[in-house]
Amino acid sequence: MSTSNAESLVYEAASPIASAPSFPLDQWYVAALGWELKEKPVGRTLLNKPVVLFRTADGQVAALENRCCHRALPLSNGTLEERGVRCGYHGLLFNGDGNCVEIPGQDKIPSKAKVPAYHVREQDQIVWVWFGSEAHPEPTCEPPAYDVHSSGKYLFGGDVYHYDAPYQLIHDNLLDLSHLGYVHLRTIGGNASIHMNAQMKIESDDTTVRVVRHMPNSVPPPTYTAAYPFKGNVDRWQEIEFHVSHLQIWTGAVDVNTDAMDDPERGGFHMRGFHGVTPETESSSHYFWTMATNPVSDPEATKIKVIEQTILTFDEDKEVIEAQYQNMCRFGTRPMVDIHVDVGANRARKIIEQIRHSTC
Amino acid sequence: MSTSNAESLVYEAASPIASAPSFPLDQWYVAALGWELKEKPVGRTLLNKPVVLFRTADGQVAALENRCCHRALPLSNGTLEERGVRCGYHGLLFNGDGNCVEIPGQDKIPSKAKVPAYHVREQDQIVWVWFGSEAHPEPTCEPPAYDVHSSGKYLFGGDVYHYDAPYQLIHDNLLDLSHLGYVHLRTIGGNASIHMNAQMKIESDDTTVRVVRHMPNSVPPPTYTAAYPFKGNVDRWQEIEFHVSHLQIWTGAVDVNTDAMDDPERGGFHMRGFHGVTPETESSSHYFWTMATNPVSDPEATKIKVIEQTILTFDEDKEVIEAQYQNMCRFGTRPMVDIHVDVGANRARKIIEQIRHSTC
Amino acid sequence: MSTSNAESLVYEAASPIASAPSFPLDQWYVAALGWELKEKPVGRTLLNKPVVLFRTADGQVAALENRCCHRALPLSNGTLEERGVRCGYHGLLFNGDGNCVEIPGQDKIPSKAKVPAYHVREQDQIVWVWFGSEAHPEPTCEPPAYDVHSSGKYLFGGDVYHYDAPYQLIHDNLLDLSHLGYVHLRTIGGNASIHMNAQMKIESDDTTVRVVRHMPNSVPPPTYTAAYPFKGNVDRWQEIEFHVSHLQIWTGAVDVNTDAMDDPERGGFHMRGFHGVTPETESSSHYFWTMATNPVSDPEATKIKVIEQTILTFDEDKEVIEAQYQNMCRFGTRPMVDIHVDVGANRARKIIEQIRHSTC
Repeated sequence: MSTSNAESLVYEAASPIASAPSFPLDQWYVAALGWELKEKPVGRTLLNKPVVLFRTADGQVAALENRCCHRALPLSNGTLEERGVRCGYHGLLFNGDGNCVEIPGQDKIPSKAKVPAYHVREQDQIVWVWFGSEAHPEPTCEPPAYDVHSSGKYLFGGDVYHYDAPYQLIHDNLLDLSHLGYVHLRTIGGNASIHMNAQMKIESDDTTVRVVRHMPNSVPPPTYTAAYPFKGNVDRWQEIEFHVSHLQIWTGAVDVNTDAMDDPERGGFHMRGFHGVTPETESSSHYFWTMATNPVSDPEATKIKVIEQTILTFDEDKEVIEAQYQNMCRFGTRPMVDIHVDVGANRARKIIEQIRHSTC
Repeated sequence: MSTSNAESLVYEAASPIASAPSFPLDQWYVAALGWELKEKPVGRTLLNKPVVLFRTADGQVAALENRCCHRALPLSNGTLEERGVRCGYHGLLFNGDGNCVEIPGQDKIPSKAKVPAYHVREQDQIVWVWFGSEAHPEPTCEPPAYDVHSSGKYLFGGDVYHYDAPYQLIHDNLLDLSHLGYVHLRTIGGNASIHMNAQMKIESDDTTVRVVRHMPNSVPPPTYTAAYPFKGNVDRWQEIEFHVSHLQIWTGAVDVNTDAMDDPERGGFHMRGFHGVTPETESSSHYFWTMATNPVSDPEATKIKVIEQTILTFDEDKEVIEAQYQNMCRFGTRPMVDIHVDVGANRARKIIEQIRHSTC
Repeated sequence: MSTSNAESLVYEAASPIASAPSFPLDQWYVAALGWELKEKPVGRTLLNKPVVLFRTADGQVAALENRCCHRALPLSNGTLEERGVRCGYHGLLFNGDGNCVEIPGQDKIPSKAKVPAYHVREQDQIVWVWFGSEAHPEPTCEPPAYDVHSSGKYLFGGDVYHYDAPYQLIHDNLLDLSHLGYVHLRTIGGNASIHMNAQMKIESDDTTVRVVRHMPNSVPPPTYTAAYPFKGNVDRWQEIEFHVSHLQIWTGAVDVNTDAMDDPERGGFHMRGFHGVTPETESSSHYFWTMATNPVSDPEATKIKVIEQTILTFDEDKEVIEAQYQNMCRFGTRPMVDIHVDVGANRARKIIEQIRHSTC
């Protein structure tokens, strides 16, 4: 990993932000949060492919092309049965492999009666899909684990947001938490200068970027004080870990001078965010998020508060990012001026650029 | 007429469903239901032509190009007077032939001050329009009669629906009532296997298709039992008659073994549907329908119930067909797999294909 | 100035109404009404340029390109401070000249960190902007004065409407008040034949058109009688003055035979309209209007009534003009038939045509 501090990179040239980016294909992308797949099939376009997601009787998740091979109705308009999904028009029944297993009123099932099935895997309550490039139609690795959901140490909740903006603008936003001071004044932000002047360290390799920001002896923001009984000022950290299809952000604080900020076993108040960013199309995205927290007293109420604050915060981000993208479309390709906070985001863009070209 | 039963045609090749079909021109198409034309002009695009429809003082219907020749305001934004329709901008008045008969404040009316008029005819409370091809600008026949509306034997009601889908998808839907089991579970459908296993007979010639389905000794669906005092199981029939611009569907049932199902004078409960399917554009349609019924007791209340159920049913169809069309657009041209229920619809598509090419 | 009366021009050829007109560039256009620029920046597209408008601490108005040079967020999503507008994403601060004067957390401001600024001037509570052609990037004249707003003789109010229609259709509407009889029956219109048969005089030169209409001894319309104690019939006038980027319309009435209608010092009831018509794009416009009146008794209540009536009237115009434009798009380029009322509008179109070609 190469390590550098932000100052030396302030004037690093901005990577061009293409208005119609395509995406790395040989990746596991988030297709759904596990609890979305219950009694109804879910229709969702992922990487330009319309997909129907559902859970079969044995609890396995399945992902098929969202088009009945008979008359093209979306299978997500149908209903779930023990053997699979039944089309809501003429009742053809498809199993999790995409094979038609029943045509009502007809004995023989033509061999052509099937729909494409995609590689899909559920892990720690996250449902991942692999579409793959022509070179790698089969997954080359296991989907990522995320034990925050399964360790039992945290309470969490989450949701999926639809963005009218390309996925990389969401990466940019998450990799640069300095925007907290301006976008999120009312919630997790607090004092702007704290964020802009945070101590920042950035590391990266071929597929990840890690941005660590420390804000020692700072005033805790509204969300923190609402959720945890801090005595006064806090030592606050933000650890952002970028992977090609998702980010993990571990933020939190301890009372001033009580624990080392870079100790993974540190105490205090923690918010651990999972952020799955999956392109819907070149110009729109799905943003799957969960927020986990470690309450000390009144845990359920605290969790609800944290989730409420998180929703407010992510609503603010969505508003800014969609306004940004609309304006980029309005103005077309135009150079951008980089500032010190862009280093992490620019590295992530380079990683994606390289992966995209290496799979072409 | 060639007659065949469905089984031998199960694997008949599907006619390709073009995403942007055009339409047979030398036909009478439904432009309005008679009672729509009252105190206000009606603007409607029919076969890509924006038309204003209205009734003149003598009760005759008129159809003009929906554009004032002065400054292009739709005439449907204007008001009706004894002599015709008056533009809502500067008050030019046009009669039913499209001639300007008054320019307020100006004595001389330029010879160019007129708008195109179309052939329009009202028959049995249905308003028909003929646009014609270049070869046949004048109608080559009379508009269809529909004495169900005028015989006095039935009570009826109806409405017009706008579809974001091409007209032929509505034909497909109406010609294959096997979808009742999956789309209309709550209303006229009832048990799915009854529909899929119905006895079916199909006849066709150069301009019509007739699909007859018999469901002897079957459980009557909710709409039927709500409207008629059946004693138990029924002998149920569906007779679908396709014409190029409209369909007639005569469905009903008698108590088991009380009347021949193919006797036009049979008793029992009847629902007689008129279905005018008029292209608005290549990708959208107007669907004019009426539903007539023959109540034995409490006739007005029964009719209201039948119309309510029909509305629920047609709302369900619209939802499915528009979802189907959206998905066809999403996926582009792709082969479809035919099943046994498609025979009638496929013949109708062939008829339209032949007529379209013979008028080209 | 050439003077002619309408009759001789009735059959003057209509100037073609292009579906995608462009605009004269070397003009002052209205960008805002003065009172719009208060505590928040205003984002608005003017002549295809997205602009952020705001007032600086010293009360001066400023107009910048509405795009932060860092990551393209509209500056109108930001907040106003004493020194200028601060971006709502990462907090860059821009002054009224478009220079970045602060990058939070960064000492050095790159020389490229600036956004284009436009010539903007406030005069009589109207904010004007000059974009200019390549030949005239600097204003070649002062913005128009409008002392109706500052003389103290009138009470007034106003607003800005967004139109989904090209600017010249609004000119047409304002230059031909004969439409009052058909579009505005409920408000300022009154009897249609009065308007169509008004005495009309038209004068024009290279950049202006003046249409004067007199309706002696006529019934005052509802708005007038609601606002002024007329004794009975009135001598009523309409004076329309077209300039390339705006119109002034002075209408009013005196009791019959009490004052000369063409005397600027005439008494009676007056409504003085300012109408700034600024293209947003080729197919959409901003319509800035104020309405000033000279109440004799209960002035504030009278003004409120007049403004209410004006809003009703302008809502009616907007509905008609947008319907007209939609229909023009539907039908594409098609000849129009001129009538006697079109003379003023046609001259205005010729003026704009000539100016557009002279600056090309």
